[in-house]
Amino acid sequence: MSQSLFEQHKETLETALNAIRTRDYYSPYPESPSPRKYGETADKDGQAAFKAHLNGSFALEMPGITGEAGSEKSPYGFDLGVQYPTVDMDVLLPAMKEAQKAWRDAGIEGRAGICMEILKRINQRSFEIGYAVMHTSGQGFMMAFQAGGPHAQDRGLEAVAYGYDAMTHAPGAATWTKPQGKHDPLVLDKKFTAVGRGVGLVIGCSTFPTWNTYPGMFASLITGNPVVIKPHPAGILPAAISVQIAQNVLKEQGLPPHIVSMVIDSDPAQPCTKELALRPEVKLIDFTGNTQFGDWLEQNCHQAEVYTEKAGVNTIIVDSTDNFKGMIQNLSFTLSLYSGQMCTTPQDIFIPANGIETDQGHKSFDEVAEALSNGITKFLSDPERAGMVLGCIQAEVTDKRVDNARELGAVVRESDRPENPWFKEARMRSPLILAIDSDKEDVYMEELFGPITFLIKTENTAHSVELAHKAVSNHGAITMGCYSTDEATLDQIEEAALDAGVALSSNLTGGVFVNQSAAFSDFHATGANPAANASLSDLAYVANRFRMVQSRKHA
Amino acid sequence: MSQSLFEQHKETLETALNAIRTRDYYSPYPESPSPRKYGETADKDGQAAFKAHLNGSFALEMPGITGEAGSEKSPYGFDLGVQYPTVDMDVLLPAMKEAQKAWRDAGIEGRAGICMEILKRINQRSFEIGYAVMHTSGQGFMMAFQAGGPHAQDRGLEAVAYGYDAMTHAPGAATWTKPQGKHDPLVLDKKFTAVGRGVGLVIGCSTFPTWNTYPGMFASLITGNPVVIKPHPAGILPAAISVQIAQNVLKEQGLPPHIVSMVIDSDPAQPCTKELALRPEVKLIDFTGNTQFGDWLEQNCHQAEVYTEKAGVNTIIVDSTDNFKGMIQNLSFTLSLYSGQMCTTPQDIFIPANGIETDQGHKSFDEVAEALSNGITKFLSDPERAGMVLGCIQAEVTDKRVDNARELGAVVRESDRPENPWFKEARMRSPLILAIDSDKEDVYMEELFGPITFLIKTENTAHSVELAHKAVSNHGAITMGCYSTDEATLDQIEEAALDAGVALSSNLTGGVFVNQSAAFSDFHATGANPAANASLSDLAYVANRFRMVQSRKHA
Repeated sequence: MSQSLFEQHKETLETALNAIRTRDYYSPYPESPSPRKYGETADKDGQAAFKAHLNGSFALEMPGITGEAGSEKSPYGFDLGVQYPTVDMDVLLPAMKEAQKAWRDAGIEGRAGICMEILKRINQRSFEIGYAVMHTSGQGFMMAFQAGGPHAQDRGLEAVAYGYDAMTHAPGAATWTKPQGKHDPLVLDKKFTAVGRGVGLVIGCSTFPTWNTYPGMFASLITGNPVVIKPHPAGILPAAISVQIAQNVLKEQGLPPHIVSMVIDSDPAQPCTKELALRPEVKLIDFTGNTQFGDWLEQNCHQAEVYTEKAGVNTIIVDSTDNFKGMIQNLSFTLSLYSGQMCTTPQDIFIPANGIETDQGHKSFDEVAEALSNGITKFLSDPERAGMVLGCIQAEVTDKRVDNARELGAVVRESDRPENPWFKEARMRSPLILAIDSDKEDVYMEELFGPITFLIKTENTAHSVELAHKAVSNHGAITMGCYSTDEATLDQIEEAALDAGVALSSNLTGGVFVNQSAAFSDFHATGANPAANASLSDLAYVANRFRMVQSRKHA
Repeated sequence: MSQSLFEQHKETLETALNAIRTRDYYSPYPESPSPRKYGETADKDGQAAFKAHLNGSFALEMPGITGEAGSEKSPYGFDLGVQYPTVDMDVLLPAMKEAQKAWRDAGIEGRAGICMEILKRINQRSFEIGYAVMHTSGQGFMMAFQAGGPHAQDRGLEAVAYGYDAMTHAPGAATWTKPQGKHDPLVLDKKFTAVGRGVGLVIGCSTFPTWNTYPGMFASLITGNPVVIKPHPAGILPAAISVQIAQNVLKEQGLPPHIVSMVIDSDPAQPCTKELALRPEVKLIDFTGNTQFGDWLEQNCHQAEVYTEKAGVNTIIVDSTDNFKGMIQNLSFTLSLYSGQMCTTPQDIFIPANGIETDQGHKSFDEVAEALSNGITKFLSDPERAGMVLGCIQAEVTDKRVDNARELGAVVRESDRPENPWFKEARMRSPLILAIDSDKEDVYMEELFGPITFLIKTENTAHSVELAHKAVSNHGAITMGCYSTDEATLDQIEEAALDAGVALSSNLTGGVFVNQSAAFSDFHATGANPAANASLSDLAYVANRFRMVQSRKHA
């Protein structure tokens, strides 16, 4: 049966395999939540399906279920009330390990077919998952739909394509013929089997409960590893729906559904993540979250390969521009989107103290600061747009961080609390913009997660480049942006980005933003600086999730 | 210039790239030390070149040279007396880190051309290196030439091919065109640069000073990392010659020669390997050696990716055979070759207590044991053949281990001390064969490096399979062999090998031996059991030695 799934999805896989090599635009999952793409009733049905989960018990099939738990709250102001099964790890993990053989024997094509069928069904439920992402992460619906739906699915498919590519690099079988001069050659028949490492653990985050979960989930699955997802306690529902879909596909194919499982904390006050991460069955760990826990995983889980995305300080170097308006508009959207709660949002914008040259003439440091402040305020002046773009603040601690950050520099723009047109209890904040001197490194070279941006007054652009390089090298970053009209300066910035190991976006003034990365084309995180030890996705992300085991005999 | 090297070696690279995908036989470096292949005077010249190194100072170009050291002794009975430069790590390592930029800027093709030119010149000096390997490892000359020369070069080229393949998986540049309905598409120009991780450290072993050094050396080099080799104190010369060749090629290309460097202990009583492995500049470590040190590297060098090949217990399951004579001959050679000092030599041979069925009728356990003992004795009865095949015992501690092992079971065959026809002081030992009951797991499930083999009396073949599986899973293994005429039994053994994650050779009775692995076709070690965390070579071996750093801008 899974072979027929492979045939069904073969063309998509081949297109994806081509995309990861050409790095041109590709997405099989429409990013527009349009009725033309998803059906006339898709939005209504998805919203109804989301609501049907609320205040109910969510069913998953796993050996060792012990009870239920769950305490998610929508940042838009209500309790989700969903209860999810809790499990006994001593029952679940050995059962998952046991199921690995069946998953291995499904073969590369069998697993590829199943993974792609799971993704297809997840795509069909993009509205339901979009609402689940919205009401856990606090993203606006459009972003929750896109980033939590099709864009996350793209990243899942990308991981499938990389895994498939890596596993099929060597053939399943080969004949080895070694000439022996005048004698008959030596001939051996050889078999090569891709074997998973063990159980893959994916530790999710609260802000991107699917986008940051699918890559590890599908990278481990395709390469032959059962996967257990440990979602963030604040963002369980999107993962649970995804796990349920996966279990349904597995069951239909006659495979143990718990090849994809989910573990949550029975008691959120006593998180079980460390215990889970140290289980001997767990051989792969994918983690998105804070640096402290990521470092702990890297340094303590010696039984597993650990892939982490941690905190960082993203930077923008402003040197000059031939499109001042475009730059301000681009940055205004960038800083507003999801209230700066993206791992790709810039925190530090380096601007020379004596200002910059622009197509509107010289602009002083204060004029640039004011233009950015006004640009954001103008952009957010439409309450519906503000509600959609800002979304909510996911965690209370982020909300408090914004308040506390006011004292860290000179306030250029206050972070206010816009009213959400649809949800009166929504926890909303607009961007806080602070000006600060370049010598306050201890302040701005630390990640302050949330809508907090520093405009850093530097001696000149060379100084900006030096400080941005230092921020990336010492504290990590996923993105770097720059604005300059001077080729030599752009070259210097590119060299600094290469040396520090961070992705650079130059002179973005239109419909592309530094905090957005496109699957199949953009590598998300480099793995070359402290913000992450891996990239979404590349060969390194998949090649060590399986091992090749060979056998040989005389032909 | 390096571009022209790429053109010169392009065809070889393309053939190698094809070989790692098809896994058919391939070797560009002739394994026969024949005058027709290497020239009429190659042997004489190589021997003279080897002798010219003795009792002299070996020159390498490295910043921070502090003095010289070296105390290698040939297991054939004389001091090498070569002195190698010692260096100040605080000078060398920062200089190597600094040189990384020039190496990066040489580009993928530039680095490939240089790596392949180095390999070509190493190949031309295969006799000189062969004698250097012989008189450090103690291998017989034919093996030292082949395994230390062409076969090691094959593994180096294989690593170059894998690295090149992984780095060119994504293009150097791409245009990304995202349709926008009726509007103009979004178009970005993107650049993708493969950037090395930092300095690669290769920690060599005494038994295979080139075969186990070239893979890590060339995998790190091709992917953009300067490489420092820390040879085993007993096997410096083969590495030093290789480093010198690499430095010459680098200099000719206008690059810093210390992109390839070598560090040795100023005082062998105070090894500097841990200090070197913990240096912040070191981001990649390749190690071959004992489990204790390999585990220490894996668990303590958090700043680096660590690739290890450690100890293991290789097994053979004997169930039945239709070629008893062929089996005995094959195993006699396997156990004799280099006196069992290969990481691939079987230590544990599982035989049912009630014997096996063969083409010569039923053979009792004792008859199989006697046949193997006699087979070895007969095979080694020609002193010249014994000298060539057995070689010497590399380390005194191995020699003593053989003596002590006599007490561990019932002696089936004594290990004697054959006389070497050419070197009267050579430290030679023939294989010790012991019979032992299956319940003595604490004895035979521990690696006893050297010419020590246990014939383990099991209840039946199912019991043999269970014990072999346990040995691999708990103690690691690089090889597993089996003999059976029954398809169902072969399937069970194959399943056990897959589950434990070890390469299986079935029914080898001719000119292929379980302890030999062919580059481009056989994966050496799986990385799936405790004997190694990596494989020579696969994508996982190279894909994380570099990171992709991208930049993008509007087209």
